[in-house]
Amino acid sequence: MQKIKVGVLGATGAVGQRFIQLLDNHPWFEVSELGASERSAGRSYIDAVEGRWKVSANIPKKIAEMKVKECRAKDFGCQLVFGALDSSVAGSIEEEFAAAGFGVISNSKNHRLDEDVPLVIGEVNPEHLQMIEAQKKNRCWSGFIVTNSNCTAMPLTITLKPLLDKFGISRVSCVSMQAISGAGYPGVASLDIVDNVVPFISGEEEKVEKEPLKMLGKLQDNKVIFPDMKISAHCNRVTVRDGHTECISVELKKKPSLEEFKNALRNFSGEPQELKLPMAPEKPIIIREEQDRPQPALDKDEGRGMATVVGRIREDPLFHYKFVLLSHNTIRGAAGAAILNAELLKAKKFI
Amino acid sequence: MQKIKVGVLGATGAVGQRFIQLLDNHPWFEVSELGASERSAGRSYIDAVEGRWKVSANIPKKIAEMKVKECRAKDFGCQLVFGALDSSVAGSIEEEFAAAGFGVISNSKNHRLDEDVPLVIGEVNPEHLQMIEAQKKNRCWSGFIVTNSNCTAMPLTITLKPLLDKFGISRVSCVSMQAISGAGYPGVASLDIVDNVVPFISGEEEKVEKEPLKMLGKLQDNKVIFPDMKISAHCNRVTVRDGHTECISVELKKKPSLEEFKNALRNFSGEPQELKLPMAPEKPIIIREEQDRPQPALDKDEGRGMATVVGRIREDPLFHYKFVLLSHNTIRGAAGAAILNAELLKAKKFI
Amino acid sequence: MQKIKVGVLGATGAVGQRFIQLLDNHPWFEVSELGASERSAGRSYIDAVEGRWKVSANIPKKIAEMKVKECRAKDFGCQLVFGALDSSVAGSIEEEFAAAGFGVISNSKNHRLDEDVPLVIGEVNPEHLQMIEAQKKNRCWSGFIVTNSNCTAMPLTITLKPLLDKFGISRVSCVSMQAISGAGYPGVASLDIVDNVVPFISGEEEKVEKEPLKMLGKLQDNKVIFPDMKISAHCNRVTVRDGHTECISVELKKKPSLEEFKNALRNFSGEPQELKLPMAPEKPIIIREEQDRPQPALDKDEGRGMATVVGRIREDPLFHYKFVLLSHNTIRGAAGAAILNAELLKAKKFI
Amino acid sequence: MQKIKVGVLGATGAVGQRFIQLLDNHPWFEVSELGASERSAGRSYIDAVEGRWKVSANIPKKIAEMKVKECRAKDFGCQLVFGALDSSVAGSIEEEFAAAGFGVISNSKNHRLDEDVPLVIGEVNPEHLQMIEAQKKNRCWSGFIVTNSNCTAMPLTITLKPLLDKFGISRVSCVSMQAISGAGYPGVASLDIVDNVVPFISGEEEKVEKEPLKMLGKLQDNKVIFPDMKISAHCNRVTVRDGHTECISVELKKKPSLEEFKNALRNFSGEPQELKLPMAPEKPIIIREEQDRPQPALDKDEGRGMATVVGRIREDPLFHYKFVLLSHNTIRGAAGAAILNAELLKAKKFI
Repeated sequence: MQKIKVGVLGATGAVGQRFIQLLDNHPWFEVSELGASERSAGRSYIDAVEGRWKVSANIPKKIAEMKVKECRAKDFGCQLVFGALDSSVAGSIEEEFAAAGFGVISNSKNHRLDEDVPLVIGEVNPEHLQMIEAQKKNRCWSGFIVTNSNCTAMPLTITLKPLLDKFGISRVSCVSMQAISGAGYPGVASLDIVDNVVPFISGEEEKVEKEPLKMLGKLQDNKVIFPDMKISAHCNRVTVRDGHTECISVELKKKPSLEEFKNALRNFSGEPQELKLPMAPEKPIIIREEQDRPQPALDKDEGRGMATVVGRIREDPLFHYKFVLLSHNTIRGAAGAAILNAELLKAKKFI
Repeated sequence: MQKIKVGVLGATGAVGQRFIQLLDNHPWFEVSELGASERSAGRSYIDAVEGRWKVSANIPKKIAEMKVKECRAKDFGCQLVFGALDSSVAGSIEEEFAAAGFGVISNSKNHRLDEDVPLVIGEVNPEHLQMIEAQKKNRCWSGFIVTNSNCTAMPLTITLKPLLDKFGISRVSCVSMQAISGAGYPGVASLDIVDNVVPFISGEEEKVEKEPLKMLGKLQDNKVIFPDMKISAHCNRVTVRDGHTECISVELKKKPSLEEFKNALRNFSGEPQELKLPMAPEKPIIIREEQDRPQPALDKDEGRGMATVVGRIREDPLFHYKFVLLSHNTIRGAAGAAILNAELLKAKKFI
Repeated sequence: MQKIKVGVLGATGAVGQRFIQLLDNHPWFEVSELGASERSAGRSYIDAVEGRWKVSANIPKKIAEMKVKECRAKDFGCQLVFGALDSSVAGSIEEEFAAAGFGVISNSKNHRLDEDVPLVIGEVNPEHLQMIEAQKKNRCWSGFIVTNSNCTAMPLTITLKPLLDKFGISRVSCVSMQAISGAGYPGVASLDIVDNVVPFISGEEEKVEKEPLKMLGKLQDNKVIFPDMKISAHCNRVTVRDGHTECISVELKKKPSLEEFKNALRNFSGEPQELKLPMAPEKPIIIREEQDRPQPALDKDEGRGMATVVGRIREDPLFHYKFVLLSHNTIRGAAGAAILNAELLKAKKFI
Repeated sequence: MQKIKVGVLGATGAVGQRFIQLLDNHPWFEVSELGASERSAGRSYIDAVEGRWKVSANIPKKIAEMKVKECRAKDFGCQLVFGALDSSVAGSIEEEFAAAGFGVISNSKNHRLDEDVPLVIGEVNPEHLQMIEAQKKNRCWSGFIVTNSNCTAMPLTITLKPLLDKFGISRVSCVSMQAISGAGYPGVASLDIVDNVVPFISGEEEKVEKEPLKMLGKLQDNKVIFPDMKISAHCNRVTVRDGHTECISVELKKKPSLEEFKNALRNFSGEPQELKLPMAPEKPIIIREEQDRPQPALDKDEGRGMATVVGRIREDPLFHYKFVLLSHNTIRGAAGAAILNAELLKAKKFI
């Protein structure tokens, strides 16, 4: 099979690096274009990221000597681009690429809540991809934009999906302890986080309170009907390199038994599993029964960073149940989720 | 004024060390007896804690050469003892001392929920000290036991007190990010916490869900009437040496305006402040208006470790308001709180 | 090919866990016996390490349900045992197994400096394995003991070997910054290492100053003739989970050019590479030219944790050259090195 | 006594903040001018450092509302300025102030090695201040510049001084493990240092190898005659907020006994101690006999951050003796040292 050529917009940043790493030897996709800011354009990738390559010891050989371009659609010779741009510039660049006929698989926040842009988690709402047609029509684009959610909202939504389907959900409390890699590089200053907790991440709580509602919504006439539930989020930064931990309490429409609750999570599976997509974890949710799990140091790489690990499921005095979840924020929470979306688009013949 | 001679039970452990440090040059109390396990007994204090003194560079000179004794009431020549014993032995030793006529000011969990033992925070429920008389009578003791709460429950209760008094409280959610010093020494293994979060602390959530209710209760006929409210707690360990951070959401009986809510916290003051007790912070609660405070690295020493620092007060989509609090877990959350209780007992002539 | 059955002595400890992990799916060896203390004996492995399995998310399935035995030779039905016992008990247990005919591949310090026990790094002194025959004769053993060095001494010796061979060495200064995993579990208390450096590791400097001399020595008449060189070591513990970093300064008998010096390291290769042993890294030493490498976070897994990464090679005002090296302390520095020794023994028909 | 009005150049940066903090309630000096970049000029100090005040919970009240100015000599109404500017701009600004008649007490590197600029540690070479007269003449300045050394070179030089005086020194090896605060704010990215070591700090090794030689030199005819000794430095960044740890090996001209060596360090004292300067620690060097000290977490605040703590003094197989030292890098290693220099200038009537 001929691999599909893809580009990475924002290839030199922290999420861009994860795309490069995860797409290395991908069975379906092959990176052929690297886009970054004017400052990097014209330089080899290895040059452009000098001193800032942080996801592993070495840059994949094929990529290292590739030339970095500015993010202009007319200069890109591929069909699909992954968007890892900073939100200060992502909005208009992604639109330019979509207008020019590219499939834009974006990790940026800019278009996530646009009415006609699918915000998709492969296991949760693959049917939202149907909005693409309306999007193209509305915007007179030959291409399109598909987005994935914020890294903290993602595993929360994955665990809420089977609960919503089986029991209905009325209220959710989420308190996160997030890894420093979520802020990119240089990102969080070491003086702010060594021997410290920072109980604030700009814009994060708003995303966690809103994005899941769109992804858990029903598609009717190309519109998403949001479910009748509320989420409250406290977001914190802690001294962890990779892996977001979240304390979740949930009130359901109808309270199941503890065993029913666990089974709903344990047995959850979605289209990416059915379609055996390359990036899909065997099981989207892994349940641990030990009293002190999940932990970033031990569990973040489950399912090659694509599984959500859930533990400490127990009754809650205010809500019905509470539990702790863990997810790799730059794999499942960013680049890996976007690649899974691209695989889904291909498997479902959108590209 | 002649200082009151006091002893420290469990003087070599982590909390015991804080007692030694905080009682150094105390205007009212003077450490004259050091109690520890059989293994330490007969040795000088500096010998007994060799390699385990962790609260500052040096042991106070007066204490270093003092002999450590086993914790037997008959060998102690003081009136008051501070209890910093491990809960595996604290229960019976504290009873022995109380029976023998000592005032026992305990930081251990063993007797906290006993019906006739006051569980007291100076600013919250000083009137519960009246239970001492009944306790002595019930138990035929010439001495008594007074306890302070768990380190995570303490600042939570301090912030809830003015809210309960002004607005009533129905439901409280508390998610903690706790410092490693809370587990004593050697305590948490470094492999468990470097670049990690541990989402479990044995027995902690139960304490946080129960102890505040007793402290916020009303005393009637020497019984505490618990308030009609519920607390849910998730307790986590994070990579911080000192200072517990807690994300609190609270639903009130009657919702005040944001300004009224803040003012209730800001203007809170109690008997320790009125009586100008040596250990009392000028203000029990300090409000920070910056969007990213409180933080352990910056705020844990406010009020010499005795103030609770509150920030990020804002509306909550599920509850009424949410905020973040920070408190020094081995000062306000342990030894400092016990010393404040002793000061209160003296000021109120219980000793 | 039939796999060789092997046992792990001290299977439940930190190094023992690494053995289990690295031997999972090993092409030549298959774990069939698990030895540990009396306390663990009789329990399944998963039970015996409960809450202490720290090298990955999950215990290999085949091992989890295997019964743990006490470390008695008569109960072990295999030919080879890997020794990961604490040095307080390793000495006599290893002797018992060797006497009983087992090949004992030990990571413990007890017999490393015994005159007739080979202390071997596959790439450095594989010829020392010839001492085995004399050892068996001396001690009237049907089996034997082979040891690998201390985790800090190991990569130091690997880098010194080509320098010694090409230029001669007179003096070496080594200052280490060692990972917490080197102390096992629970090992280093978090209060000792979070936001701290501990400039002392018991017994470590002595090992680093002596063990390399034995490994770099020449074998004559079954005796090791130590080279005429001196090493000085300062050993420190820092806040890193895995990967020892060492600052090395070296004075040679004859000063080469910087390029010759680098090439000697870069081109180094040994028997494990020639024999293509399964555990052998493609290159024992990897040179990085960036000014700020190697770093544990980026480089510790090179060669699946078996390569030594060297950077910052430059002139030294006192010695001839200085550089920084990094090595994975529980893989190359412990279990991986022992497995490589076993592979070498098999490839060279000692077993 | 009327306090001397002083200014701080670079008042908003990390070192500038330490100056503000340490000068709060100083008995001789009073901050009356705050200089910073154009961007901050015209704003109140509290505004200008918003979100970047990192040395304590609160900005001193008197300073918070003070207006920040650009660093122009003509706008400053004080006699003395402390220099905490980034080296990219410090050179010419300091010259402008010195030319205009100010005493400039600088912590920047720019003029440290100028032939006619004193590089002074109060306890080591106070007599170098005599160069000021020649400097003023040479440069036709009515003011002058006095500098203090790099934060790593400083405690090294303090410990070398008594050794040089008593025994002579031929060679010194220094390997540092430096705190993140040394790089200012935002400084070191958290992804570079959490669970990591960075074995490189730009320009640092050159400073450590040179600056001590100037400070340990003899003044002859207003020129510094450098001592005949060599220093080799490896500089590393580790996961510590404050406090540089250094492993030192030293070869003397004449080898003393271990006890003589220790006593030379222990009994060292200088002019700041004789003159009882406010910032001077009671003892410049504190010796610890425990096998695992000094440690940043325990020892960095000795002498209010102005003492150098030395431990693990022992024989060295290559050099004569080796030891570990610890020093607070932003107090003794920066702002505190500069303030001590200013105190010395006043006590010796240079100002």
